[in-house]
This record gives sequence, C-alpha cells and structure tokens, in this order.
Amino acid sequence: MTWIGARVVRKDAAEKVTGRARFASDLFVPGMLRVRVVRSPVARGRIRRIETSRAREVPGVVAVLTARDIPGRNCIPVVLDDLPLLAAEEVRFHGEPVAVVAAETEAAAEEAARRVEVVVEELPPVLDPLESLKSDAPRLWGDDNVFKRWHVRRGDVDAALQGADLVVAGSYRTPYQEHAYLEPQGMLAVPTPDGGLEVTGSMQCPFYVREGVATVLGLPLASVRVVQATTGGAFGGKEDVPSIVAGQAALVAWKTGRPARLIYTRDEDILSMSKRHPGLVESRYGFARNGTLLAADVRYILDAGAYATLSPVVAWRGTVHAVGPYRCENVRVETLAVATNKVPCGAFRGFGSPQVLFAAESQMDEAAHRLGLDPVEVRRRNLLRDGDVTPTGQRLRAEVGLGEALERVVAASGWAEKRASGPGTGTRRYGIGCSVVHYGVCLGAGGRNLDRAGAFVQVMYDGSAIYAVGTTEMGQGMHTVLAQVVAEELGLPYDAVRPVASDTHMVPDSGPTVASRTTMMSGNALRRAAAPIRRTLQEVAASLLGQADPADIRLENGRATAPDGRSVDYDEVLHRCFLERRPLASSAMAVSPETSWDPETGAGDAYITYAFAANVVEVAVDVETGEVEVLRVHAAHDLGRAVNPTGVEGQIEGGSAQGLGYALLEEILHDARGRMVNHRFSTYLIPTARDVPPIHAHIVEHPTEVGPYGAKGFGEQPLMGIAPAVANAVFHATGVRMREVPITPERLWRALRDGGPR
Amino acid sequence: MTWIGARVVRKDAAEKVTGRARFASDLFVPGMLRVRVVRSPVARGRIRRIETSRAREVPGVVAVLTARDIPGRNCIPVVLDDLPLLAAEEVRFHGEPVAVVAAETEAAAEEAARRVEVVVEELPPVLDPLESLKSDAPRLWGDDNVFKRWHVRRGDVDAALQGADLVVAGSYRTPYQEHAYLEPQGMLAVPTPDGGLEVTGSMQCPFYVREGVATVLGLPLASVRVVQATTGGAFGGKEDVPSIVAGQAALVAWKTGRPARLIYTRDEDILSMSKRHPGLVESRYGFARNGTLLAADVRYILDAGAYATLSPVVAWRGTVHAVGPYRCENVRVETLAVATNKVPCGAFRGFGSPQVLFAAESQMDEAAHRLGLDPVEVRRRNLLRDGDVTPTGQRLRAEVGLGEALERVVAASGWAEKRASGPGTGTRRYGIGCSVVHYGVCLGAGGRNLDRAGAFVQVMYDGSAIYAVGTTEMGQGMHTVLAQVVAEELGLPYDAVRPVASDTHMVPDSGPTVASRTTMMSGNALRRAAAPIRRTLQEVAASLLGQADPADIRLENGRATAPDGRSVDYDEVLHRCFLERRPLASSAMAVSPETSWDPETGAGDAYITYAFAANVVEVAVDVETGEVEVLRVHAAHDLGRAVNPTGVEGQIEGGSAQGLGYALLEEILHDARGRMVNHRFSTYLIPTARDVPPIHAHIVEHPTEVGPYGAKGFGEQPLMGIAPAVANAVFHATGVRMREVPITPERLWRALRDGGPR
Repeated sequence: MTWIGARVVRKDAAEKVTGRARFASDLFVPGMLRVRVVRSPVARGRIRRIETSRAREVPGVVAVLTARDIPGRNCIPVVLDDLPLLAAEEVRFHGEPVAVVAAETEAAAEEAARRVEVVVEELPPVLDPLESLKSDAPRLWGDDNVFKRWHVRRGDVDAALQGADLVVAGSYRTPYQEHAYLEPQGMLAVPTPDGGLEVTGSMQCPFYVREGVATVLGLPLASVRVVQATTGGAFGGKEDVPSIVAGQAALVAWKTGRPARLIYTRDEDILSMSKRHPGLVESRYGFARNGTLLAADVRYILDAGAYATLSPVVAWRGTVHAVGPYRCENVRVETLAVATNKVPCGAFRGFGSPQVLFAAESQMDEAAHRLGLDPVEVRRRNLLRDGDVTPTGQRLRAEVGLGEALERVVAASGWAEKRASGPGTGTRRYGIGCSVVHYGVCLGAGGRNLDRAGAFVQVMYDGSAIYAVGTTEMGQGMHTVLAQVVAEELGLPYDAVRPVASDTHMVPDSGPTVASRTTMMSGNALRRAAAPIRRTLQEVAASLLGQADPADIRLENGRATAPDGRSVDYDEVLHRCFLERRPLASSAMAVSPETSWDPETGAGDAYITYAFAANVVEVAVDVETGEVEVLRVHAAHDLGRAVNPTGVEGQIEGGSAQGLGYALLEEILHDARGRMVNHRFSTYLIPTARDVPPIHAHIVEHPTEVGPYGAKGFGEQPLMGIAPAVANAVFHATGVRMREVPITPERLWRALRDGGPR
Repeated sequence: MTWIGARVVRKDAAEKVTGRARFASDLFVPGMLRVRVVRSPVARGRIRRIETSRAREVPGVVAVLTARDIPGRNCIPVVLDDLPLLAAEEVRFHGEPVAVVAAETEAAAEEAARRVEVVVEELPPVLDPLESLKSDAPRLWGDDNVFKRWHVRRGDVDAALQGADLVVAGSYRTPYQEHAYLEPQGMLAVPTPDGGLEVTGSMQCPFYVREGVATVLGLPLASVRVVQATTGGAFGGKEDVPSIVAGQAALVAWKTGRPARLIYTRDEDILSMSKRHPGLVESRYGFARNGTLLAADVRYILDAGAYATLSPVVAWRGTVHAVGPYRCENVRVETLAVATNKVPCGAFRGFGSPQVLFAAESQMDEAAHRLGLDPVEVRRRNLLRDGDVTPTGQRLRAEVGLGEALERVVAASGWAEKRASGPGTGTRRYGIGCSVVHYGVCLGAGGRNLDRAGAFVQVMYDGSAIYAVGTTEMGQGMHTVLAQVVAEELGLPYDAVRPVASDTHMVPDSGPTVASRTTMMSGNALRRAAAPIRRTLQEVAASLLGQADPADIRLENGRATAPDGRSVDYDEVLHRCFLERRPLASSAMAVSPETSWDPETGAGDAYITYAFAANVVEVAVDVETGEVEVLRVHAAHDLGRAVNPTGVEGQIEGGSAQGLGYALLEEILHDARGRMVNHRFSTYLIPTARDVPPIHAHIVEHPTEVGPYGAKGFGEQPLMGIAPAVANAVFHATGVRMREVPITPERLWRALRDGGPR
C-alpha cells in the first residue's frame, strides 16, 4: 500500500489555514437578498395573528413571508414528516420559526424581523418528558406524546436478576448538548434561469436539503441542485436542520426570483437548531460474584423536544447500544422518545448512545466497586470478542479489537499502579476511571434503505484526477481519506487527486453523511467506480509492456510495473488511452450488506460491523470546590484500519474533548415558561484549549471484511465513552457516584457536601 | 416512439424569451476584475517594447500583464501549437493580443489599455496566399509558408480529362466570413480555494478551454474546471478561440488571485477572432457528352491567416468534400493551407467545404449549360446513391437520401416549369438555380482520436431526471434533442428531463462540439448511459407485474407496461428502486466507429456517414443595378432521422440565411498595410430579417445505422450549398457566371457591364 495508512497532508489544509476556504457567509451573489427569521417568543401557544405591516415599512424590505406563502408542503421531511418550515397555527417551542423577512441589507432584514409581531395565545408548556408521559399531560403528539418506542427482549431478565449475586440499580440523567460547530448554519438559494433552484451552504446531507427544498417549493428533485459549501463543523447538527435553513432561504428566492442568503446568528442557532437529546436512564444490572454480567434491564427515555425529526432513529441506535459492548444473555431495553415543548433534538455524535452508555459504563464501574473487583477486570470478563454475540443477538465476525484496545489503554496509562496508589488525601484528590464502548458503523437496520453511496471518478489524460461523492466534508477529513483511496486504487500520486464539492447533480442519492459511514460507504463506492479505470490502465500498460495478464500489472504512484520489473510511466499509458479513446471516467454505487431487526424481539444483525474503543481518564478533584481537572485521557480505538493515522488521532482528540465538555461543562437551561436562557457562548460553556488535557490516541486495527482495506468508520466513538470514564474517575477520587452530567463544580460540591456515594 | 420525431418546446425557450438566461456578460462575482486586451496596431512587426507605466497610473488598475507574466507555456494548443496567448517578440496580424489589463472597472481597464504603448517595428505584411507561396515571400511558417498540404489521387485524371467530351475550367474565390454570433466572446475566471481555477463563459468546447487554461497557467487538468455559460451562438467561432479569451481572463485571475471577467467588444471580436478561410479554387472537370462526370482536378488554397490553429483539419475536410456528392473515378485534389499576416482562420459551419463546394457546384452548372442539359439532370446522372463510392473511395451504406432530396426540391419548387419559362426580359430578370452537397458527419479520420463523447444520467426517485454531456448547447437546440433521447430511452415525460450545463468535471473529455456530431455522439453516449437504468426500471417493473422477461416491459411516459397490457406507474417502480437501493445513475462514453485515411493517396473511409442536401434558390436580378433579390429557397436535407423536426427546420432556415449572407453580402476588407477596415456591424453586413426570403425546409429521412434512432448530424449543411445555388440562379437570370462571392451589386454590375459569361 502506498497511500493507505500514510500520514498525508489534509486536502483542505492550505485553504483553511490561509482563509481562502469559502463558507456560507463568504458567498455573495449580485442582487442577493438577506434573510432573517421571526421566531416564537413562547414555548407553546396558538398563533392569533402575525402583524407584518410595520415590518414592510422598513426601507429595503422586499418580502415578509409566512406559512401561507409556502407553495408546496409546509413540511421538512425527516422521519415522521411532522416538522413545519414555518409554524402555521400553533407554536411548540421557544424560537420556533414563524416568518421570514427578506431585505436588501442585513440591517434592514434584522430591523424588519424585529418589527414583525407574532401575536400568540400562550399555553402552559410541557417541559419534562416524565410530565409529558402522564395521562393528563397536554397532548403534543398522538395519544401519549411518544414519538417512538423500541424494545429489546432477550432471555429471562427477571429470573436472571433474581438469581444474581449482585444487582446494581441506578437512575442516570444526561443533558441537552449543543453541537457548537465553528460555523453557524447558513444557506444561499439562487433561482436558476430554467426555473430551478441552486442551493449552496453549510450541511452534512445534500440529499436531505434537496428533498426539503423540493417539498417546500413543490418542485421536482431534478430542479433543485444542492452543492455543499465549505462546512465548518457539524457533529450531527447539520444533518436534518440545514433543510430548514435552506427551505427558508429557498422560499424567499422562489417568491422574489432573487438570490437569498440566510446566515443564522449564533444566538438563534443555539436557540432553534437540533441538540443532543436529554436522556433519562433507569438501569438494573445483575452480576455473578465473579463479575459476570447476567442481566440488564434498561428503561431509556429521550426528551425529543417539540417535533420528532430524527428521534425515532436516534432512539433505535440508543436501544441497540444500551447495554454496551458486553455479552449479556438476558436483556430488556425499553426506549421511548417523548415529546416536550422544547427545541427538537436530533443527531449528535454518538446518536442516542452517549446517554445510555453513561449509564451502562457507570453501572459496570459500580458493580466492580461493590464486588471488590478492578473495573478493568470486570470489563475483561464480559467484553465482546471475536465470534461473540451482542446484547441484541448479533454474532460478530473475527474483527473485534475491543480486548486489545482495553489492554492498550490499561498499559499506556499505568492503570494498575495508579489504581493501587489510590486517590491520596487532602483537598486535591487523584482519580482514574475507564470505559469501553462499541459503535455500530453505518446506518444499520434502522436506516437500511438509505445505506448506499454513489461516486464518480475521472482521470484526465495528464494523470490528474477528480472524484465526487455524495457524502460531505465537514471538517472530519473525509476528502483526505477518500483521495488516499482514489490514489491507492489508481496508482496515482495523492497530490494528483482532486476532490469536487459534494453536489446532488454529480452522484446519485448517497444517503446522509452520518453514522460514521463515510470512509466505508464512499470509500467502497470509490473503489467500485475506480475499478474499470484501473482495469483500463492495467490493460493498456500490459499491452505496452507485452504482458499477457493485465491483472499482474502493479499501479503505483504514476507508474505501471510488470512482474518482471519493467515499467512504464503513466504519461505513456494515458497517451495510449487517449489515442485508443478509452473511457477514464466511471460512476458507481455501493450499498451496505444486509442488516436485520425484529421490532418484536429487538433482535437482529443490527449493524454491518462495529468499531470499539476503550478510554482511561485521569482527574484531579478539588474536594472543597467540586472542581474536576482532567489530567489526561488515553483512548484506544479499533477502527479496522487507519487510512490516515493523523486524521484518526485528530478525531480521537476532538471527540474526547467534546466528551469532556459533555462530562463536565455543557448543559442547556430553560426557565419555567420553557424559554431557553443560555443560548450564547457566554453562558453555554464548551471546553477551550486550556480545558483540554493531553489526549493520548492509540490506534488498534482489526480489519473488517466489509470496509475498504478493512477500515471501519469510527468518528463518533471518541466522544461516547468519555463521560462515564470521567464519572468513574471522580468516583475513584472521591467515592461519590455522579449519576448526572455535566459534573459541574456546583453539582459535585453538593454531592460531596451530602457525603459519600449516592 | 414517443419523443423521437416530436415537435417539443425547446428546453431553453422560456429562459431565453424571458431574458432569464445568463450569458457571460450577465455573470458577476464579488471582487471581480474587468479585463481588456491590448492589441497589435500593425499586421506584421517586431515588438521593441511595451510601455505600461502610463497604464499603471490609471486609478483602479490592478495588473498589466504581458507574455513574460505567463507562468506556463505561452501557447493555446490547437493542432500545431503555434498560437501564443500574447505575442512575445513579433506580431503577425492586426489585432493580435499583446497585453492584458485588469482593473476594478470596465472604464479604468479600457482607459489603461488605451495607454499601453506597443512599440513595434513594422514589417511589410504578406496579405495574399498566392504571394505567400512565392519563394521570395517573407517566411511566416516553416520553409514555404504552408501550414498543411493534403491531396487526393485517384484514377488517372490527366487521361480522363484528355478523353472528355467537355472540360470545364474555372477559378473561384470566396471571402472571409465572420460568424456574427449574437453574443461576443466572454469568459469569467475564478480562482478556487484549493488552488485551482473555475472558468465559465461562452464556448463550444469546454475541454479545449480547459486544456488552453491549464497550458497557459501550467496547471494539471483536474485543477481547471470549465463550465459553459449560456452561449449565444457560435457557428465554429467558439471552437478554438474561446481558449484565448479564457486564457487571458485566467492569467489575470491567477496573477491577482481575484475573479476576472473579459467580455470582448464586437469590434475586437470581429477584428481578432477566427473566421472562415478565404478560399481560392482552381478547378477543371471533364464530362462525357451525356453529362457523366469523368474527372475532377481541383487545387484548393486556403488563406489561413497568421497562425495555423485549426487550418490543417479545415483543409482536410475541404479536401474530402472537394468534388461534391458525386461518383467520380478520376480525382486529383491538392489542398494547401497558407500563412498570411491576417487574422487566423478557423472553424465555421461547413469547415472548409463551402469554399470548394461553391466551385464544384458552379462547375456542374456550367457543364450542364455547355452540354445543353438541365442542371438537375446532370446532377441526377452523377450523384451518390446507396452503395456508391465517394470521390475519396469510400463505399456508402444504404443510407443515402440525396436523390430523394433533389427530387423533393425539384418538385416543390416547380423547377421544370420555371426553368422552361426562363428569365424573362426587362430590368428585373428571374433565375432559378440548384445545388447538391454532402457532409461527412462527425470528426472522421481527420480527428478520430477526439471522436468520443461522455454522458451522465441520473433519475431521481420522484421520476425527474438530469443528464450531463460534454458537448454544448450554443443555440442549435442540442439540449432539446438530447432531452428527447433521454425521455425516450427511459420512458420519462420530456418535461421531467432536465439538462445540466456542460461541465468538464461531470463527464470525461468528449471532444469538441463541432462537425455536426452532437446529436449522434452525445445521443449515442446518452443511450449507453441510460441503458443500465432502463434495465433496472424494466427489471423492477417486471417483478412488480409478475412478468418473466424484463425486456418485454415497455417504458413510456412514466408508466411501465407488460405485453398483456397490465401496467404500473413509475411512482411505484421508483419507490421499489429506492427500497431496493437500485442505482439510477450511470455514466458512459460513446466512441465513433473507425474511419481511415491514407495520406499518400487521399483515399479512405473518411467519415462514419454522410448527410445530404439539395437546394433550389430563386432570384430576381436587377440587371441595371446588379442587385440580387432572393425570392425563395427550397432546401431538402437527408439527416437520417429528425429527432425534432422543428429544430431541423430552424437549422435549415438559419443555415440558408447564413449561406445567403455568404453568397451576397459578407466580406472582410483589409487596407494595404493589412489592417482590417470593416470590423463593425455597420460595415460588415449580414442579412437582416428583411433580407431573408421564405425558406421551405424539406426533411428527408434515410436512417443511418451509426446514429441514435438513425439520426445523422446535419447542422452545418444548410449553409453549404446556398452560395453556388444563388450563383447558378444568377447565371440563369443573366447569363453571367459569377465565380466570386459575395455577389454584391457592384461586382455583378461590373460583370454585367463587361457582358456575358465570364
């Protein structure tokens, strides 16, 4: 391998370092209108009227549009199609879009938006999912305010708990988490001369944006071309909701016939865009004295917010991952995604698993403590290995690197010695904790129809090449990895391969860029697309070299070499291709292998494969203030094969940092009327560079047969196990079991004051 | 067939009628510089220096660039790679680019360009190709000022002429012709964040533009993306020379890092862009008494201008077509493309054939006159029919519709009666003349390596579709015809099919959009690209309908129908495709069948097939003023199959009108120092609506096996035979044989004054 495994320079490094990269707010088109959104001032209410006359008086205002101006369906299609583009009769959360204003300048649009008066009859909101589940709660969705239920029923949980030597029970809470991507949401919509629309902006999923815009405007899909602009981070927060932003900009463009750009302020972005679901997990685990996990009984409630959006699938992934990466033959999981009058929750790195894994990995830690075993030892005893069966009944292939990952962090962190030397005494106590997680890569049975990806590859006669895929670069390094794949497959220098911006017109619907599926799915699609070009290069080179079997020709770095060592430069091969009019372009689609899920039993081959991780977190706790300082993180990830180790390390560092924010800092607060109170970075705190400790990344490679060169996707995984490892380290340091994150100084101080383990 | 042969509305009708279409000069990008070109004031000279300091003083000027600023090669690659982007040491024609100026405004750029002083030592220019061929002429190219020679040697011409009953000899002259496209040349070049360049503008050949820009800037092809803007006419005039315009804009963009737009004024466009080659033909034909053509001896000199550009291939096509569509076993053709110090000539509808066909069809007319035969009868006796062998030795398949075409115009025009009733007497004399021509479709052996085309088709799950091709829409109606092909192949409504702007990143190098090859080559490529999608639709429909053989499923207008009449809507078929994750996108390439050419003998299967035409032109000549009024034109064209009869009629009308301009009005004049004097539409006259008579279009369909649904390309053909038909009609009216076009009143008046046939 020339490029697979190489630490190449990121494809987008230069443009991002120099500031040449063009994000949505760098896009200008002559005649472009600026758009602002008018939002609900209350969490729940009936819209009595929308006063727009004072807004229309602002000089430069071109349009004030409400739901009744929508030419197509007032719907952003996600799973249940319940999300309107603009609220029509009632508002269901504080910050919900009600109208859009378009003006010649940002200032005029801003002023006009302020002047639109949304007259609402306020109703008492439902803010807590447990309240929402009560039979006398206001009806927000269906008969019971439950958007979706899932369950797993395996073995005999009650009997196993009955017979267990130890039952550990706990109730765990996790908060909203804001994606805090560097770049807020933004879209530019431009009417095309042929009656279509071109939409460019910040997004994860161009095909979702296309469907959203086409639905809202009542246009055929072919009339909406969506091209991704450079996207400054996403983390799931640009999966479904960019369709709202695009729909708002597109509505203006369509009604006015002019280009329209809408860039969300950070304020409204935090206020109205999707978040990680707050989670509530009730957990009972049964153990044998030796630490063997006998049964798991988990009730998992997701606070979905005002609209279902992605909650049904978020809940599904949470269900599959609920018991963590362990063998467990008696499993009961009940998952509910419940409606409340708060901002709708959606995709976020981990996708419903971090909440439930916080519970699972805390439970394992507590069991170890109560059994007098080392937490690592309890995990060693139960964790998934080659050929094991997951809690949902899926037998794993021989590609499970979890054991190795755990031993790597245990060894690298000096776990044994540090556990042995203990937390010390005095104000500042030392703690070390661990966690293990698994991650079902790609969409799995919950999204199998979407689990496909298209690719297009074209080699030019001078040996340079382009490729296009339907997944997106959002900072995660997709294009670096995929250019490595193309260079490897075609024997081209990495620098000769140029990615093209993701564009719905260039490749077929490739599903969303989520579920850590990009390296695998687009990688596989590119390999398929490259295959006929590779064959052509081999055939032509074989003929030039007088070699009988083209398959024997090795292609590497711009040369074709026969088994006897004779070789020919690509210049010559490509010139011959030109003369022979050989096609050097190809499009292809990859689909994931089949998965299965029985909704009755919650059993099935849920995912095509799994990635695995083990984390060790070391902390120092000030037991007088409750402050937790993270000293270092060791994280080992089995991702099958690291196409670009530097990118992998970056993902591990970034995900761990985001996990530390989840563990220690981040939460969204609402007032009693359901209004979000901390939708600014001055009040919603995320880790800064000074908060992030050294993160030691360890790469474990147990290749999967279903990924390109054995690679598994893993980008979400680094976040997933951090919070419980922190909580476990805090327990080690203080003896206090924190069952709610973030472990803020206030919260920990109160727990320490109340004394001892909770 | 649902769509093939249907008179659908043009795909670009609405946007062009409403003014929404965006031509190059409608493109604006923030920060865009305006570019102007500084040109040689003389026809030939040595550049002593270029004074730029006074230009740089103009406020708003950002760059003044000369040849030494070119980072790559100072060359626009065409055939011989002799054309520089900017003249470096010597200038070779009046109007040759010497420097480019970029400024914040058009006015500043204009002013600065005026202030650049090109100090030239003027040298005596060579203006006439016959002068250029003299041994003591200044050396402009190689040893003999001949860019390229071709010949045909077949049979024994001298013996056949010796034995002929009649030898007709003549010397024929044709002028420069200006394309007079509605939209002048224009390009926008935008640097991309990743270090590449995106070029958009008016063009025929995106892949030529890409190569030109990459060469000039020293960039890999993959770093230059070329997207065609709406293009307002071309006629060959946007084949090679847009690469100059793009290179000039790109040079500015590259050096300044800013977007740069260059729109040529009409003045400089006529002055410096390519033209039809002036032609000089010496012809001797031998006939038997019964009118049989026994021998043809043709010497054809093309005045190529200062650089070779496309002249070698223009000369080749002229060579192949030199004797017209007749059986002739003794053929000698000598063709020379000769350098002079005038604007370089290039592609123009007919591509080297109208000049020599003017001679050929005048010769036939004169032979008829001198043999006392009807001109139609002489043609009937000699013209190519199924299975005949062309003058270059190519045996035709059974797809020759020339005889039918001739009979159609003869009948429709009332030829026999009108010839019989004669020109009449008095000042205003009536005349009727005819011509027949053939046209070798696609590039043929002269450009076989380029004769390929790529296509990409994508069907969306809602039944709308897009397609992309590498050939271009320039007003000729390509996208209407190709959308018909896609709709037909996939059983979609025509309105559901949306073309995508031609884009070098979406399809592989598809060669140039020339040689009337688009319907055939891109049509074939689209059929190939559609084939797997069609199969998928048939398979899925067959399974839904319980039909064993998918091939039996008929796809039409959004429904799939089994032989027993049961049918299923595409909604259902496509939903199933979605669920089954069936790919509905495909790219493909078509290559033309093999052609051959022996440069020694000038024999070979020059083209993959031929289209044919017959014209009858009726005129009224004022014998006192020499004014020729064209009363009507009958034109019958065998184009294999008319995919869109309305488009075909439009091509016939437009081509005939352009041919009438060539016959009667258009010529470029130079002063004694070689400076073009009539580079404005006030002095270069083209037919207006009032000059164009009724044109009766007749469609003849002899399907070819190598084109889609039997279609042959034919877009150039309508111009090709008009000039000789006019001259022959003038002869019929006046008895004066005009051997030079345009037949201006002055020229005809002088001939009438000098009396009788010349």
